[in-house]
Amino acid sequence: MSKEIPYKIYLEESELPKRWYNVRADMKNKPAPLLNPATLEPMTAQDLSPVFCDELAKQEVDDTTPYFDIPEPVLEFYKMYRPAPLVRAYCLEKKLGTPAKIYYKFEGNNTSGSHKLNSAIAQAYYAKEQGLTGLCTETGAGQWGTALAMACAYLDLDLRVYMVKCSYEQKPFRREVMRTYGASVTPSPSMSTEVGKRILAEHPGTSGSLGCAISEAVEDAVSHEGYRYVLGSVLSQVLVHQTIIGLETKAAMDKYDIKPDVIIGCAGGGSNLGGLVSPFVGEMLRGEADYRIIAVEPKSCPSLTRGTYAYDFCDTGKVCPLAKMYTLGCNFMPSANHAGGLRYHGMSSILSQLYDDGMIEARAVEQTSVFEAAEYFARCEGILPAPESSHAIRVAIDEALACKETGEEKTILFGLTGTGYFDMVAYQKFNDGEMGDYIPTDEEIQKSLSTLPEVP
Amino acid sequence: MSKEIPYKIYLEESELPKRWYNVRADMKNKPAPLLNPATLEPMTAQDLSPVFCDELAKQEVDDTTPYFDIPEPVLEFYKMYRPAPLVRAYCLEKKLGTPAKIYYKFEGNNTSGSHKLNSAIAQAYYAKEQGLTGLCTETGAGQWGTALAMACAYLDLDLRVYMVKCSYEQKPFRREVMRTYGASVTPSPSMSTEVGKRILAEHPGTSGSLGCAISEAVEDAVSHEGYRYVLGSVLSQVLVHQTIIGLETKAAMDKYDIKPDVIIGCAGGGSNLGGLVSPFVGEMLRGEADYRIIAVEPKSCPSLTRGTYAYDFCDTGKVCPLAKMYTLGCNFMPSANHAGGLRYHGMSSILSQLYDDGMIEARAVEQTSVFEAAEYFARCEGILPAPESSHAIRVAIDEALACKETGEEKTILFGLTGTGYFDMVAYQKFNDGEMGDYIPTDEEIQKSLSTLPEVP
Repeated sequence: MSKEIPYKIYLEESELPKRWYNVRADMKNKPAPLLNPATLEPMTAQDLSPVFCDELAKQEVDDTTPYFDIPEPVLEFYKMYRPAPLVRAYCLEKKLGTPAKIYYKFEGNNTSGSHKLNSAIAQAYYAKEQGLTGLCTETGAGQWGTALAMACAYLDLDLRVYMVKCSYEQKPFRREVMRTYGASVTPSPSMSTEVGKRILAEHPGTSGSLGCAISEAVEDAVSHEGYRYVLGSVLSQVLVHQTIIGLETKAAMDKYDIKPDVIIGCAGGGSNLGGLVSPFVGEMLRGEADYRIIAVEPKSCPSLTRGTYAYDFCDTGKVCPLAKMYTLGCNFMPSANHAGGLRYHGMSSILSQLYDDGMIEARAVEQTSVFEAAEYFARCEGILPAPESSHAIRVAIDEALACKETGEEKTILFGLTGTGYFDMVAYQKFNDGEMGDYIPTDEEIQKSLSTLPEVP
Repeated sequence: MSKEIPYKIYLEESELPKRWYNVRADMKNKPAPLLNPATLEPMTAQDLSPVFCDELAKQEVDDTTPYFDIPEPVLEFYKMYRPAPLVRAYCLEKKLGTPAKIYYKFEGNNTSGSHKLNSAIAQAYYAKEQGLTGLCTETGAGQWGTALAMACAYLDLDLRVYMVKCSYEQKPFRREVMRTYGASVTPSPSMSTEVGKRILAEHPGTSGSLGCAISEAVEDAVSHEGYRYVLGSVLSQVLVHQTIIGLETKAAMDKYDIKPDVIIGCAGGGSNLGGLVSPFVGEMLRGEADYRIIAVEPKSCPSLTRGTYAYDFCDTGKVCPLAKMYTLGCNFMPSANHAGGLRYHGMSSILSQLYDDGMIEARAVEQTSVFEAAEYFARCEGILPAPESSHAIRVAIDEALACKETGEEKTILFGLTGTGYFDMVAYQKFNDGEMGDYIPTDEEIQKSLSTLPEVP
């Protein structure tokens, strides 16, 4: 075992990044713009401002500015829970008997339990600066909602959360954490919004989806003065905020002269993966380095591996702008997979473009194999991982085992986005041997894709 | 706001303590020895070895060796989740408007969610070294059981946990975490042991206590070849392992020339408080420094503030040795207070002696005021604290507010032992305004104390 690299690399406070990186500035093929669903014209920041805070609307459409300064109060908040450690998985390597060197960036050391807090505090800050009263949002696994509740409590903003019903029921205590931080939480679809009523009429008994919950949160926000809508993934602004993950990781690796060969992250809407890989992709785009990047998604919701690259609605209720992305169609209703954060029908426009350009690979994995990896990891590395994060663990282990076969001493880096303390219903099903795998048929996907909007 | 001291002080791996400190070596008035309940003779290491691992039995009776080397494999394990950060509570200070400087040592950054892992890995290691098959233990809040499950999974040891029924019911997912790490969990009192059957016959419908669960775990251990009993608090060996908390804290403070005026910790069995304060108490005992130390206990289970300093049984079933300690009597059945880890009838012999010698103070606080402090802390410092830890937060806030009155710039240090992710039933009761305070009457305490064993 090398004595030179510690188990955990923590940057000093003075070494923390002070700017977010906007990878779009280095992309030759820019992500396609959001379109107005009525006119099919590209949306400007002004067009977006009834829904988003002004500053966030600007960040959303800015594909040329390479860096955004992180506001001082956000930097102060970051210091409460950052830097996140870059961990050398010595125990996992030893147990696997692999010559590979495995690192993970662990974003779970905060009460929201995930990386979501990185963007939550940024978005809440801009809302506060604009003088808003409160925010509306959706949450899948509950991690985004929790993160935003923490940020809003800190800044004294009102918060209303629409939580995907499936997660609301699987994670009964998530709601209580959000309440403890002062938020109100409604299971979605609900009868509180017009779009919720419509979806419930069309799909009685549905366990919901992120697409539905987004529609409800947007409707709530735009129909109340002083409120705006915020989103925890998919959007380019969110990927920008999440680059704090990749920038810290890169700084920590550079400090010890470590260069990853493979970079792995789970991908739902893409915020974690995008944030982790952006600085590395930037180097690739500028011709400075080369990396293999793998996006891991669940076989039950395979937007990259089985979706289509096309303009689609971001939400089931079709109240949002159109985004060009890899999508399964906004009517796609994923099974009640326990990785609630990976049940989104589409994928970040930035990552979709990078995937289409061949800059990143994608791999879909089955739920039970993900939980096998999660338990294996927990028992040797200590940390109980979130189901979402465990998708990356599964592929990191597979890559490390491949190295064992070939004898290659590759350096593998993966993003461990969060902890699984609120996923014990899922772990219980796995422990009791009652967990299944659900893989949609080609017909199901084709049916959902048949409703894509026509964009010339 | 001072820019010199970072929000979080992390020691380098090379600065981590390599020895545990045994405060008994510096005590003039040694803690009274454990007594054989039949002969009333002091127990030797050999007498203890049918119940405890040999090395742990030696540590238990050793009151002269000032330091024990931490075994190399335990140091390696520590590196997976340590150092724990020493946090400057800038946001809390600002919100309180106090001139006091507040620091907390945060032990919740690991999956067990508390400091318990520090002793769990040590005890599991010695068991493994001795060639044992497995361990039996009790758990109150579930944090000790989880910690031991993690340690046993890492070292491939079998584990059987008796969980206080009240916590078993309040924390349904704790069991699942322990199972994920491969442990078996039984609610206590149970029908699996003779002592459990006896207690259930005497107290039908009891919600259990640590004292009951200890009896069951000991019976299970001594009646199975290759098994030993391990305990997560109270014992001197546990306090020794937990000094890693105080040693790290002291090293971090020394690095920045910080000297605490007041040191605060919650006290159930005493492992966290003892571990945090031992190095500081050592300085006091050697006449090198002076500190004010406050043990905080719940008003519902006030062993220091309303108990008696006497020999008593460590367990309800009276199968364990007698320990001299501040006690409410081993038949004391605390109310279903949500701080499961603070529901023990007695207190560590070391802390009891220090308290009797006037080296530490004690303060009892009400449950609802504890949850008020917990929520206040969560909303400004981000971390969702465990109910046990929140006892220390309550008193730290009270001390900081006293400084606000007087204008004193005291430096306050408290131990934040863990996170409250599995305490959401309690938070829900608090959020719904349904939480009460239970304070035992003098008659109840006298009745329980009337059954103390007679020791000449």
